[in-house]
This record gives sequence, C-alpha cells and structure tokens, in this order.
Amino acid sequence: MIHSSGQAESISFLNEIADKFRSAISFAAGAPTTRFLGRLNAAALLSASSSFPSLQYGRTAGVINESVARQLRTDEGVAANPDQLLITSGCQEAIMLCMAALCPDPSDVMLVCNPTYPGAIGAAQSSRVAVVPIGHPSRRLAEAIEETTAELRKQSRTVRGIYLIPTFDNPTGATLNKDDRCDILAVCTRHRIVVLEDNAYGMFRYEGEEVPPMAALDSTGCVIYLSSYSKTVAPGLRIGAATLPETLFGDRSLSRSLFQELQQRKSFVTLNTSQINQAILQQFLLTQDFTLRSWIEPARRLYLENRNAIVEHLEATVRPISPKISWKNPEGGFFLSLCLPFRFDAASVNECASEFGVIVTPMSFFALDESQNCVVRLAFSSLDPQTVGLGVAALTRYVNWRLERSKEE
Amino acid sequence: MIHSSGQAESISFLNEIADKFRSAISFAAGAPTTRFLGRLNAAALLSASSSFPSLQYGRTAGVINESVARQLRTDEGVAANPDQLLITSGCQEAIMLCMAALCPDPSDVMLVCNPTYPGAIGAAQSSRVAVVPIGHPSRRLAEAIEETTAELRKQSRTVRGIYLIPTFDNPTGATLNKDDRCDILAVCTRHRIVVLEDNAYGMFRYEGEEVPPMAALDSTGCVIYLSSYSKTVAPGLRIGAATLPETLFGDRSLSRSLFQELQQRKSFVTLNTSQINQAILQQFLLTQDFTLRSWIEPARRLYLENRNAIVEHLEATVRPISPKISWKNPEGGFFLSLCLPFRFDAASVNECASEFGVIVTPMSFFALDESQNCVVRLAFSSLDPQTVGLGVAALTRYVNWRLERSKEE
Repeated sequence: MIHSSGQAESISFLNEIADKFRSAISFAAGAPTTRFLGRLNAAALLSASSSFPSLQYGRTAGVINESVARQLRTDEGVAANPDQLLITSGCQEAIMLCMAALCPDPSDVMLVCNPTYPGAIGAAQSSRVAVVPIGHPSRRLAEAIEETTAELRKQSRTVRGIYLIPTFDNPTGATLNKDDRCDILAVCTRHRIVVLEDNAYGMFRYEGEEVPPMAALDSTGCVIYLSSYSKTVAPGLRIGAATLPETLFGDRSLSRSLFQELQQRKSFVTLNTSQINQAILQQFLLTQDFTLRSWIEPARRLYLENRNAIVEHLEATVRPISPKISWKNPEGGFFLSLCLPFRFDAASVNECASEFGVIVTPMSFFALDESQNCVVRLAFSSLDPQTVGLGVAALTRYVNWRLERSKEE
Repeated sequence: MIHSSGQAESISFLNEIADKFRSAISFAAGAPTTRFLGRLNAAALLSASSSFPSLQYGRTAGVINESVARQLRTDEGVAANPDQLLITSGCQEAIMLCMAALCPDPSDVMLVCNPTYPGAIGAAQSSRVAVVPIGHPSRRLAEAIEETTAELRKQSRTVRGIYLIPTFDNPTGATLNKDDRCDILAVCTRHRIVVLEDNAYGMFRYEGEEVPPMAALDSTGCVIYLSSYSKTVAPGLRIGAATLPETLFGDRSLSRSLFQELQQRKSFVTLNTSQINQAILQQFLLTQDFTLRSWIEPARRLYLENRNAIVEHLEATVRPISPKISWKNPEGGFFLSLCLPFRFDAASVNECASEFGVIVTPMSFFALDESQNCVVRLAFSSLDPQTVGLGVAALTRYVNWRLERSKEE
C-alpha cells in the first residue's frame, strides 16, 4: 500500500457515509453543481468538430494547445505559450507528472501547505516523491518556505517545488494576496523552487478585487500553471493542462527540457489525452470565443448565493453558540473552513450524518498533523441556497448537542 | 530525465523521420488502420447513451465494468468479475498502475521480455520500478523466469511480476503456445510472480488454432489481464482495463486489497476515466451485443491481406538475397520481425527513409541489450496490400544496396 494513505481512506470513508445516509445534506462533495452541466451538448460538439481525427492516437502533448492557451490568456491573464503547454488527462495527471519530473532524486522534496488537497499528497506518494508540509494557513508562506528550505538543506535534502492553490484554496477557501504572492515568488526564485500553481477555482470570485494568478506575476520563470476544465466546463471531459514558463529561472533550454520530460512521462502514463474529449473541448471553446466568463456565470451566481446562505446561517445560528467558533468568508471558490470548539473526527462525521442528517468533512482529512483536529471543511458547490440553510441548521443542532454532551461529561 | 529513456527517444526519433520523409512508406506505425474508424459514430453513441451522467466525476474504478467484463468473457474467454475490473485511461495506465502497485520496494523487480513494448519499460522507470530482461524470444520463457528469479534472489532482489504480450507480441509478432503458457503459469505460481498479460492484439488472428489467454488458463490466481479498446474500437477512446483474478495465489483478500490499491493509485493519477468515453464505449458494446468479433472483421481481413502481402513479397524478393535473412510468419497481430545480415540502427533508418523511401523500426529500439541489432520490426496494420508490396520492394533495394556497400568496404 502507499504509505500514509490516510487521505485516500478518508475520501472513501466519506463516500461510504454519503452512500449510507443518502437523505443527509452533504457539505462534503467538492464537485461542481450538476444544474448547468446539461447545457453542454457534448455529442453535438463532437459531431460539429472536424479539426483533427478524434478517434486515432494523437500527439502526446495534445492537439488543442493553441485553443487552451488562448483561453488561459483571455480568462486568466497567463501568457501561455502553446508549445510549452501540455494537455493532460485531468489536472490530477498534471500534478503527478510535474512532481515526479521535478523530484527525481530521493533527497528531493516537494513542499505542500498543511492542510492541502489530498490528491497532491497522493500524487507525490504514488510517485515516491517526499512531501514536507509548511506552516498553517495563518503563517506567512514566504517565511515558512524560507525556513523549511533552510532546515531541509541541513539534512541534505533539496526543495524542488511547492504545490499551491493560491486562489480559493481547497480545502481552506483562503486566498493569498498579491504581496504574499510576490514574496513567495521572490523566495522561490532565490532557492530555485518551482511553484506548481493549481488554479482550479480562480474563475469563481464572489467579491473583492481580482488577484492575478502567480503565473501572471512571475517574471523570473518559476511557476508551472496547472489548469482544469472540471469546474468551468465539465469533470467528465477529464482535461487539464500544465503550462510551463518561457524560461525556467531565466534558462530557456531548461524549461524546454522539462517540457520534453513531462511529455515523455505522460507517454508512459496515459500515452495521450483522449482526442475525443479534446475535440469536444475545442469545439466548445470556439463557440465561447475562447472565454468562459459568460458560460460560468450561472454557476458562479449559484455558488455566490450558496456562500451567502452559508455565511448568513452561520452568523445567525452557529456564531452565538460559542466565541470559540470562527470562520473566514471565502471570497470565491467552493469551500469554507469552520473552526469548532471541539474535536471533529471520523466518528463525528458518522454521528453528525446519522443523528443530525448533515455531512461535513473533518479538516484533519486534509492535514499532515494534528493542527486541524477542530476544523471542518464545508463545500457548498453542489447544493442550493435552501439546502445550505437546512444543512447549517442541522449542523447547529449537532454543535449544540456536542457542547451539551461535553458539559455532561 | 528518466534514466535509460532510449526507447522514448527512439520513438520521437521515428516520429521526426516520418515527419521529414512524408512520402516514405512507413512500417513504423503500430496504430490500427484508420480505414474503418469512421464507422464508429461517437457523437451518435454519446447522444444515445443515458445510463449514467457522463459529464460529472465518476467512480474511480469505472462505471461500465459490467459491460466490459461481459465483452471480455464473450470474446476472450476471460472470467472477468466486474468488481475486480478497473477501467483505466488506456491500457498504458493499467500497465503503470500494476507495476507500481506490485513493486513498492526498491528491491522489487518486474521481469520483461527482451525486446519488449517500450511503454512497459517507460511505465516501470517513470514509477521508479526496476526492470530486468529475461532471455530472448527463442528461449523457453518458463526456464528463463526460473533462472532469473533465482539469480536475483541471490542479490536479495524479489521478482514481483512479469510483463508479457503472449499473443502476437509487440514488437516480435511471436505467440506463446499453450504448453509454454502453462509452464510459465506454474513457475509464476511457485514463485508468487504476477503475470501482467497484455492482450491488445489477441483478437486479430489470421491463421492457426486459437490459444486461450493466460488469464483463461490461470487456475491459481496469478494473472492480471490487461485489455485495450484501442485496436478493436478506437485509440481515441483511451479506455483499457485491468482485470484481477478472483484470488491472488489462492488468497481472495489479497486480490481484493491489490484491487483497492490499484483504485487508490488511479485516483492519484487520473481520478477516474472519462465518463464521456465510457458512455460512448458502453453504448457501442450494447449495439454489438457485447462482442467485437463481427465489428473487427473488416480490419482483421485487411491486416491479414497485409500480412500475406508482406510475406509474399519478402519470399519473392528479400529471401533470395541472402540465407542469413529470416523471419517468422506472424499468425496474427500487427508485427513481423525480420532478421537482416547487417546491423540496422538509427542511421540506417535515416538512410533507408531518405534514399529508398521506406521506414522500418530497428528492433534495438525495443531492446535492453545488443542482441537485436540486426533485426527490424515491420508493422503492417496502418497500410494496404499494395503499399506493403511497394514498401517491401523499397526495402529489398535497400538491403541489396547495404550488402553491395559492405562488399566494397
């Protein structure tokens, strides 16, 4: 078995809970809403597409690189060069390939936030890449990177990369401000650490000022930009991309050879990304004039309503329970992180689902230490505002019951 | 870079040659013919499919497992249990996941034939799994496995698996007879070596008696059956499958836990196989009543004609050149292996393509030692009989020219 596979077990545990208590309201699923998926007529798009033979094998690096680069430039402000862009079988494959390529040596290390997306830990572990967690979301990341890198160097270990979701993080919902991003870029440039910037949620902002992706702020060539069409178009497409900078730490040939290596590694994992799915996506991007802004608007508005509903109900019913309860309003994305005045673990999930009809995810499922034991992640993307209200009401009853019980003990 | 990435470089070299000499006849491409691909109306199939939501995320193990298992039982005689069958993003992913899962320890070893499919070597190397070649196709494999396993044990290394294409091998075209298969199963059972049986070409038999897949002969639970829809339906689907035996070496829970681990590893590589592609394939299998026999018949007949043409022309023009020239008629599949009386390397490919207008693959591109330096692989699947004839004629001129030149030297 993969070592420390706790996260994967946790996810299958959550699936089991959801299966067992089907009537429970679930804040666990981080999938996009299905409400608007039906608008995508994949069959019609496939039928209309004629730019390349969709049923044969295809180029390892992909065939719709121009179209994807164009959409990234338009929507995300990332100066994507199609020749340095690898189309992957979902963003997950991009994470895995990049980590494996950046860390060939057993002494190489990938840094990750703590908590972080479990798929990133899993991708590293399944590729036998060591991950080291840096400080908690409350700490300034640039400092944490600096310190951890120095400590690891004393152990003859080399930090090669850091996996980050700087905008509307999964699982915390937090967003790094521009200063933090620039500081991280400076530290990473100094230590030649590649930033794997996962921007799966960046287009779903509900309020506040846009912060450019780190790839758009990167002037030294240290960011690989990981993008996904799962949240904006459809998870069923299984299309993501890794976009490399023009130069890697100022070296053009280094970036080129990393790209070649990613391509080679991809050929050994999935050969190439399905031409059928690439045909559907390209045809779709064409109909949207290479911007997804207006397409995602109905979903963005639903998520915004859900976020407003969750925050409103938390304020009204959960906040008054205890001053120890806290959260931060996410400015976008799918997740809100809620600190509770007690430990919330797998047994709590079961209790909360079976007795109170609501499923939330312990933040410890995303963590590499004990720091997140009293935190839960509320995912609000696959619900509607009314259900969110009922869910928070159920959670309120559970929190009250837990606090009553602890008084009795 | 991945170490010993010679094979991958060789393949990109071949692509470059094909790009450079576009009018050359290519015996290099091992892709299925495009002639009949158009019969598959993927858009209509997708449109007709309604059994599951094709645009969302899906089960890691797949959603069309019942349908695939049924087709495998019908067409290949493999007693596939849908609960022990993992749908993968192409067979390549299945190879990679199995090798990584079977060999977690640095002292673990995967055996491979020499020569073998380069994607298998690449899958191992990109997962940091050690591969050790066993004897050449001429040797009895069961003995070679026994000897190599014993030698490795002396070095404290443990053989965990062997990758095999027993039927119409890529690259050699060779097929193991039933006795050989049974002997290999006996040795592998004795040493608890898992056979990864890749049967991508098995349905394309042109003559001779059917030999059951090793998975169908396996009574002890040591074969993982790897299947692909790239040759039978369409490479663009990117769908393969790994089917585990009911018990692994007699142990039901061991097979179950290996399946769980493969599922977990898959979730870290590609999350799940595209539901869109699974919907297309399932709908297609339904229209074919879960057997591909009649669907592949036009392609099988074309390949048979191509094989007949290649053999006929080799007999007529190449055989008379030298008694040192030899080949074995493949009873099926896409490949013929031709021994030449001189070394055929990358420079020869270039020479042969530029001056004689024909591209063949040096067998050394598939080999882990020097044993294949005078052998070439002729892939005849993507041509037609007339072109095959012209190609062999061109190759004849090249062989004559090479022998003339060597006399002059």
